[in-house]
Amino acid sequence: MELQAPLDDRTRWSAIGHCPIEKAMGVVGSRSAMLLMREAYYGTHRFDDFVERVGIAPATAATHLRALTDAGLLEPSTYQDPGERARQGYALTAAGADLMPVVIGLFEWGVRYADGNDQLEYAHAGCGASVHVEVRCSDGHAVGIDDIVVRRQPR
Amino acid sequence: MELQAPLDDRTRWSAIGHCPIEKAMGVVGSRSAMLLMREAYYGTHRFDDFVERVGIAPATAATHLRALTDAGLLEPSTYQDPGERARQGYALTAAGADLMPVVIGLFEWGVRYADGNDQLEYAHAGCGASVHVEVRCSDGHAVGIDDIVVRRQPR
Repeated sequence: MELQAPLDDRTRWSAIGHCPIEKAMGVVGSRSAMLLMREAYYGTHRFDDFVERVGIAPATAATHLRALTDAGLLEPSTYQDPGERARQGYALTAAGADLMPVVIGLFEWGVRYADGNDQLEYAHAGCGASVHVEVRCSDGHAVGIDDIVVRRQPR
Repeated sequence: MELQAPLDDRTRWSAIGHCPIEKAMGVVGSRSAMLLMREAYYGTHRFDDFVERVGIAPATAATHLRALTDAGLLEPSTYQDPGERARQGYALTAAGADLMPVVIGLFEWGVRYADGNDQLEYAHAGCGASVHVEVRCSDGHAVGIDDIVVRRQPR
């Protein structure tokens, strides 16, 4: 990446406290939060299932599920198992679904560099080809790290 | 996402301890680690600059920079300012550069949902269009969250 003038003079600006990456990590920047989101993508709704499938303490799950709900990634939802009363669970919101590129990016990076398993893969239901994340510009060009400029947003 | 048989029976498998997302979050799953990576993308090499630009304590920066180096995202590099002796700093590795889709994904999500700033944007140096992450299959189709199946990797 290249910082475009006037951003190239780092003595004159700071990202602290307003960087979108920092803000996003304030919401989903813990292992527990990210794995709860993974479970929501995998179709988990029920509190006990989140606890068991992520492998964390109930109190930890409760804290993070509440924070993810407050931040708008999950919302309360009602489910009902056969023969049981309706219960309160959690469902993905549009904001939660829009975190998907981050989660798939972590999956890909983990497989390649962090000794992640090779048991599962994500594939396109339509054609069966495997799924991955790409960095592209809005004109459709594939963009590598050396092809990116960081600039002030045009007003 | 849809879990394909036999994965749809969640009582018969667990992701705990070997999920690539979990492994990746073990390495970069903290606000400090991710912001240090951001600074590495922005061209920071020197320890004091990482400390100042991320806004964390020197001891915290040292711990995280060492962990990121041990995990292979950064590597020791030598830099020399005019009139000073050569010093040890940090440079991106290929593994560090390959985390870029995650970081850009967090940037995008943060702008949209977490009150991230609208001061900066990432753009393609070649054509000037803004840069974003996309989820696609290897046949080139754009893939939404409802178009993904989770399957056992073919052997």
